[in-house]
Amino acid sequence: MKKLNVAILGCGTVGGGTYDILLKNHDIIQERTGADIRVTRILDIRHREDIPDELYTEDINDIYNDADIDCVVETLGGIEPSTSFMLGAMKAGKHVISANKAAIANSWQELNKTADENGVKFLFEASVGGGIPVLTAIRGQLSCNNFLEVMGIVNGTTNYILTKMTEEGASYDDVLKDAQEKGFAEKDPTADVDGIDAANKLSILIALLFGKYVAPMDIPRCGIRHITQLDIGEAEMKGEKIKLIAHAVLNPDGTVKCSVKPEGIPKTHPLAGVSNEFNAVYVVGDMVGETMFYGKGAGALPTGAAIVGDIISLVK
Amino acid sequence: MKKLNVAILGCGTVGGGTYDILLKNHDIIQERTGADIRVTRILDIRHREDIPDELYTEDINDIYNDADIDCVVETLGGIEPSTSFMLGAMKAGKHVISANKAAIANSWQELNKTADENGVKFLFEASVGGGIPVLTAIRGQLSCNNFLEVMGIVNGTTNYILTKMTEEGASYDDVLKDAQEKGFAEKDPTADVDGIDAANKLSILIALLFGKYVAPMDIPRCGIRHITQLDIGEAEMKGEKIKLIAHAVLNPDGTVKCSVKPEGIPKTHPLAGVSNEFNAVYVVGDMVGETMFYGKGAGALPTGAAIVGDIISLVK
Repeated sequence: MKKLNVAILGCGTVGGGTYDILLKNHDIIQERTGADIRVTRILDIRHREDIPDELYTEDINDIYNDADIDCVVETLGGIEPSTSFMLGAMKAGKHVISANKAAIANSWQELNKTADENGVKFLFEASVGGGIPVLTAIRGQLSCNNFLEVMGIVNGTTNYILTKMTEEGASYDDVLKDAQEKGFAEKDPTADVDGIDAANKLSILIALLFGKYVAPMDIPRCGIRHITQLDIGEAEMKGEKIKLIAHAVLNPDGTVKCSVKPEGIPKTHPLAGVSNEFNAVYVVGDMVGETMFYGKGAGALPTGAAIVGDIISLVK
Repeated sequence: MKKLNVAILGCGTVGGGTYDILLKNHDIIQERTGADIRVTRILDIRHREDIPDELYTEDINDIYNDADIDCVVETLGGIEPSTSFMLGAMKAGKHVISANKAAIANSWQELNKTADENGVKFLFEASVGGGIPVLTAIRGQLSCNNFLEVMGIVNGTTNYILTKMTEEGASYDDVLKDAQEKGFAEKDPTADVDGIDAANKLSILIALLFGKYVAPMDIPRCGIRHITQLDIGEAEMKGEKIKLIAHAVLNPDGTVKCSVKPEGIPKTHPLAGVSNEFNAVYVVGDMVGETMFYGKGAGALPTGAAIVGDIISLVK
């Protein structure tokens, strides 16, 4: 029986979801992979009542120095100390899995280089589109393609707001307030509604699809704060729905044109049917043509499922 | 440099597309996988002018006995001799990749058992949903889930006919005739319009998702020949679109309820936006929740891309 021991950095929503899946579906994962996968250490200050106290530590060195830990799952969020912890874990010879789009997009080159130099895997399916297995498809099953274009609805908060504005005719401010009350939007919604989160995800998609790094801050970006019922009505008259689209196209000269901005999507386009908090990534390849991957872009279990999918790929 | 030599059985639409992709995108595949993948033998009676004559043979034993061939791609179609050739190739120690849903669904157990016994891989991403990488996701990135339900639009011909009937108000007979003229439907459309092709694909999906084999002939099946404008109008009044759905649900007692039949899909469901010849597979897992995979379900390059994706997974 193969064994794989996992440490989780930050056992909040996504880290906690990962812990829960590995426990709840332990037996079916073992049956399908032939591997016994267990969480043996958690870095966090707050302890969850249903998790044995002895798993917890507040010292990252306990994880770096534990030779029995094969894989570190980083679900702390934020740029630091997440980035340093990921680099440290790689240098300690541990595979790293992360859901942290901001940290990954901002240190793309250093993280991938450090993983290569230390002979460990660096996987991050959960960082774009939550539970949707699109990055794995791009790196694997679709990798015979020259990729031509990507359009993503990769931020659930803004898609929820635009859906409600379209369906219920409400104003941006009213829908935002409602979304905040329901937990679909943060108190400070800047990262979502100004397209910063989507730009982080687009930076990762561009790197994987086109082999080029464009820093998130270099992606032209326009959020949804200014969208009014007038815009939605004008789109409707043209048979379109307004969506916040993370968009990148490979130019004939090999450069990449990219943006995050509200776009009118024809109702016949598969992205037009992606509503509420759902995410979807539409990818065009020279051989496979148009494809789209749809699912939940956030939440403990969907995002945790993507992390566990990455863990499973380590044992295969 | 790793090397992988491929033999193609049947170099028609899909086999020819596979050949073309391996040639046209040889360099990018080599760059991404570190492997030199080449077609070294083709079993076919008809020779394509742009393919070197010396690749061709009409004797399957030339392929079984060629120790340099690592992988056999079966794109002959039909149950026999395809099934015998796949089993023979496995027994000769070669990995087998197939797009042949009818042969796979009908001999599911024997093909998988023979692959296991001979220590070779048996892969068939192209058999369901053409270029859509859904089977790989089910077997890989989503495999931490207990799967609960699958709904597939897995037959492009019937989806094209139903889309045109819905959008243009035309009768089944008129649209079928038009589809036949445009090459979207066969002269004898039985396998498509009576749901036989979809039942083959559903049998494969059920086996992968629920670990149970249901023979295609045991799947309750109703095609689209009887659908009229009255049905489409009634669905419209309920806010639904009629789609031919390959549907399976895991019952609480562990049994599987399944069918291939026309269903009214609410316009808010992501499958409702899947139009014309496109395919999509909607899968629900206990952890990831709702997901959907969309793309071209047929055609030389999309289906060939799925086969090449399987070939790439062999060298990884």
